[in-house]
Amino acid sequence: MSSVIRPLAISLGDPAGIGPEVVAKCWDGRSAFDLPAFAAVGDPRSVAAVWDGPIELIDDPRQADSVFDYALPLFQISSPEADVPGRPSVAGAHCSLDSLEIAVGLARSGSAAAVVTGPVSKEQLYNIGFAHPGQTEFVAERCGVSPGNVAMMLAGPTLRTVPVTTHLPLASVSPALSIPLIEARARTVLRGLQRNFGIAEPRLAISGLNPHAGEGGMLGREEVDIIAPAIDNLRAEGWLVTGPHPADTMFHAAARARYDAALCMYHDQALVPLKALHFEDGVNVTLGLPIVRTAPDHGTAFDIAGRDMADPRPLAAAIRMAAFCAAKRELAE
Amino acid sequence: MSSVIRPLAISLGDPAGIGPEVVAKCWDGRSAFDLPAFAAVGDPRSVAAVWDGPIELIDDPRQADSVFDYALPLFQISSPEADVPGRPSVAGAHCSLDSLEIAVGLARSGSAAAVVTGPVSKEQLYNIGFAHPGQTEFVAERCGVSPGNVAMMLAGPTLRTVPVTTHLPLASVSPALSIPLIEARARTVLRGLQRNFGIAEPRLAISGLNPHAGEGGMLGREEVDIIAPAIDNLRAEGWLVTGPHPADTMFHAAARARYDAALCMYHDQALVPLKALHFEDGVNVTLGLPIVRTAPDHGTAFDIAGRDMADPRPLAAAIRMAAFCAAKRELAE
Repeated sequence: MSSVIRPLAISLGDPAGIGPEVVAKCWDGRSAFDLPAFAAVGDPRSVAAVWDGPIELIDDPRQADSVFDYALPLFQISSPEADVPGRPSVAGAHCSLDSLEIAVGLARSGSAAAVVTGPVSKEQLYNIGFAHPGQTEFVAERCGVSPGNVAMMLAGPTLRTVPVTTHLPLASVSPALSIPLIEARARTVLRGLQRNFGIAEPRLAISGLNPHAGEGGMLGREEVDIIAPAIDNLRAEGWLVTGPHPADTMFHAAARARYDAALCMYHDQALVPLKALHFEDGVNVTLGLPIVRTAPDHGTAFDIAGRDMADPRPLAAAIRMAAFCAAKRELAE
Repeated sequence: MSSVIRPLAISLGDPAGIGPEVVAKCWDGRSAFDLPAFAAVGDPRSVAAVWDGPIELIDDPRQADSVFDYALPLFQISSPEADVPGRPSVAGAHCSLDSLEIAVGLARSGSAAAVVTGPVSKEQLYNIGFAHPGQTEFVAERCGVSPGNVAMMLAGPTLRTVPVTTHLPLASVSPALSIPLIEARARTVLRGLQRNFGIAEPRLAISGLNPHAGEGGMLGREEVDIIAPAIDNLRAEGWLVTGPHPADTMFHAAARARYDAALCMYHDQALVPLKALHFEDGVNVTLGLPIVRTAPDHGTAFDIAGRDMADPRPLAAAIRMAAFCAAKRELAE
């Protein structure tokens, strides 16, 4: 397997968003960004609308490597109409879903080394009957994995964080926490650190929920009743797990050096420090899948699409991360 | 007033904690740290126990400036027994409270330009009948200000944050929020930015509570029902206030450049980004007082007291910040 050079598959996302532009800019900057060969999946008109560089249509992933030197290799998704940047449409939503489906299929079949997903509009996808909360759950289902067994990691150069709960109102976080949930998410992260990052004995730091991690129960009981017991169980399995840590003293440089990933109790606890430190190069990595999947941590940005303002660095970081994880997996297999 | 050189008054905090050590180290490093003259307030034996530098007892703040060149000026607090580093005692708790009382009094009387408070043990203070949640509320009471009208700012070189709620369990944050509370805290911060930081037209960014600031009510209603109305009221008063902002995209460098302070809904929302970015040089600044009061953002650290391991940089930052704020206030008066 490793003797065949497999490209990465990148879905362009919504054709009216900034996905096509940042994919094209990544190809332009492939040397400066130090990127491996990749193939885009989507409507070539959405790229041509915002970029005048060379595109070459391919129908076999093995063509990508040789094409990549002189043109952007692209698997064409046929769409009944070309989208206008900044103006999402029903046709564009279908196109973004087809791109995602094909790109994931290439990774599942082994034709692509990994999949990187461009930004889609959930609102647009819901309009055409998409029933998943987001791309992550769609990818999980296509891979035959329960969405409850995947974890969303945000990974930057000096910090990796994973939220136990994701898109919940803050007041709903405490009732949603349980010992089995924290254990399950922790195991997904620990195994993901082994498989995707090649860390044989991963160290996981688990945060508290309350200020000062509850101060022994004075500022909330979740640490005592839920988080600490989950940590005890994980340690009993032999994992290197610490916590519950006060969240405010987990993320300075010296603290970050003591763990490979931080498991946080809620969305902002994980994303605030990650984006404070690594706004341009934080990458979304889905753990718990049989394939490698990464994504840049930004949306469609319809408001700036087609205006040559989109920053390609987050996608470049996602591409590099996908290649890194794919290489770690190949080494292990 | 400005023709007289007034020192800063620094309470040593608990004599068994790291306060005496970091005050002494700041005097040692007064040139490298670029510190103005200050006078310590506490038991000289607690300094001598961890440091063999020169101490000179003073009884008039006007002596501090000339003494500071060759010795650590110190207002002596008499204590019935000398404390052992790392071993807190009832006598030490009394001593730390007396030091705080005297240091605050020097600032209130105008003899000191500002007060910097060293770390105390709340547990020890509670043992001797101290009835305030912390030093901040004690200082507020001595200044005749309701604790509800002061705000705890954490200030670093590139970020200032203030939590609306402080030491509450996370599940209690949402019920504690109200339009009047957010408005009151915001006004304290805005006026504090004017008085303590010399910013004539301060810009305040106010966070949301929920992921993505609630996504228009889909992920929680507090932004719609409480935070946005408070912002509207503040804007109607002419203040430059923005929000509610998603917390995870408020703290990268480009976002930080757009405001002078961030008002956050809860403890960790304010302290996680501040300490991720500025762990060694974040300073606690109490806003809403008639005097300038700062503190290093760490505790007594009894576990490392007397072992020459304490880092003086947080206290040095607090001293510099106190001098900066005092100078801004003098300019305005």
